Amino acid sequence: MKDVIIIGAGPSGISAALYLKRLNRDILVIYKDEGSLKSAHKIENYYGAPSITGTDLFNIGLKQAKDLEIEIINDEVLTITKYDNFQVKTVNGIYESKTVLLATGAERNTYIKGSKELMGQGVSACVMCDGFFYRNKKVAIIGDSYYMLEELEALRNFTKDITIYTNGTLIDKPGNYEKIIELIKKDDKIIIKTNNTNESFDGVFLAIGTPKAQAFALTLGLGMNDSYLVVDENKMTNMEGLFAAGDTTGGMLQVAKATYDGAIAGNAIHKYLKEHE
Amino acid sequence: MKDVIIIGAGPSGISAALYLKRLNRDILVIYKDEGSLKSAHKIENYYGAPSITGTDLFNIGLKQAKDLEIEIINDEVLTITKYDNFQVKTVNGIYESKTVLLATGAERNTYIKGSKELMGQGVSACVMCDGFFYRNKKVAIIGDSYYMLEELEALRNFTKDITIYTNGTLIDKPGNYEKIIELIKKDDKIIIKTNNTNESFDGVFLAIGTPKAQAFALTLGLGMNDSYLVVDENKMTNMEGLFAAGDTTGGMLQVAKATYDGAIAGNAIHKYLKEHE
Repeated sequence: MKDVIIIGAGPSGISAALYLKRLNRDILVIYKDEGSLKSAHKIENYYGAPSITGTDLFNIGLKQAKDLEIEIINDEVLTITKYDNFQVKTVNGIYESKTVLLATGAERNTYIKGSKELMGQGVSACVMCDGFFYRNKKVAIIGDSYYMLEELEALRNFTKDITIYTNGTLIDKPGNYEKIIELIKKDDKIIIKTNNTNESFDGVFLAIGTPKAQAFALTLGLGMNDSYLVVDENKMTNMEGLFAAGDTTGGMLQVAKATYDGAIAGNAIHKYLKEHE
Repeated sequence: MKDVIIIGAGPSGISAALYLKRLNRDILVIYKDEGSLKSAHKIENYYGAPSITGTDLFNIGLKQAKDLEIEIINDEVLTITKYDNFQVKTVNGIYESKTVLLATGAERNTYIKGSKELMGQGVSACVMCDGFFYRNKKVAIIGDSYYMLEELEALRNFTKDITIYTNGTLIDKPGNYEKIIELIKKDDKIIIKTNNTNESFDGVFLAIGTPKAQAFALTLGLGMNDSYLVVDENKMTNMEGLFAAGDTTGGMLQVAKATYDGAIAGNAIHKYLKEHE
């Protein structure tokens, strides 16, 4: 049982880890990739790290944490559930902790035309939330990752009539591998339009890329404001023990903000743990 | 005429400068010394700068700003006044700007026993605020810097009976050079007690070290909360165009917070300038 599992190893996740480690907490950091730092070719406005690429900053952060003997694993978180404690399921294992910090960054661009407009009107990003409404209906699921397979598995509890759309990726499952042009609503059905196909469904589930905080938020019933998690002044969400920091909480999407968020969250998590010991 | 004068070259000052420079603003940074980073022997919890001394971080920040061709001078700010624009007087010059950012850090320990308790009861930290109350009275001024001489000059407008106490420093002015043991109030007088002297005054003015934001705040009538400047969500004080960031505004006295403060202030100052162009 860890004191805290931090999901994400960018500025907010590592910053929180540095604080928590120095407060003598037992931490596990799980990260999938570099997140949005990957696309930052040159960062010039972060104090203390002159003219650096996003990738270099990410790697410095990782090394900084490892130098302090913070446990970090490269894995993909699929689900977070809360019983008495938190259970974090990844591709390769299951981990338990007293608290969780979501530091997964902002939603990357996985835009499919029509998906945003139709969200809640036949399009869903959460099987656990909406699967029930499509019992024995004809549905599609869009995605190509472990996360999609996890959502697919959950969706099978509700219906067997499921078509996988990978939006262009070849995977080891039967499905439609074409690029999706757009989603259209017609007569209470959602049509997925590709170059060669034009199929209609009762419902369409999005499970694209790595699940970000937003996906966890939907499953866990967390408060959202637009696509950002709502947190209090201690960076805690509306779920006890579940914190969020950095881009995932919106505001200035900058390293400086993420780093400070992490510092606040790290101190607040320590205090929270102390109050619950 | 500069767009902005930033006073202080620690994390919040330089962070603001980096943002403002990239927004194409004409900036001048004036700093006296390293501030509280000097006493940070090892910083381990600032993301992106692994295990570093405060001095090294300070120097990296300076270099980072200079690499972006930000103008930085090493000088001591004595007074800030506002007419249409801001006039910043230093030991070596006078500079004008449309906005000012106070990033002078937290008050350093210049503690004299009794001074805090007697503040406002015969002890003052602002000649411009309280000098008038001591017209033709017998007063002492405590300090050993250019700032003390500046305050001394102002004090002479009110009274000629002034004794300088340097609290242990030898300076090129007549005065009491002994270490001060404590200030005591007795019969409406303030007694300055040293090892060998025990003199009583109608009033005592503190002008120790470099004037920090708190001293400017008193002179300019800025809102304070305890010893910290009150700022809004844009880091602006209650004076139009005068911003403050970092330790001087309280909260978590950490590099991460100061850096983010600077980012907020930098963006807000740019916006403010734009609205007033």
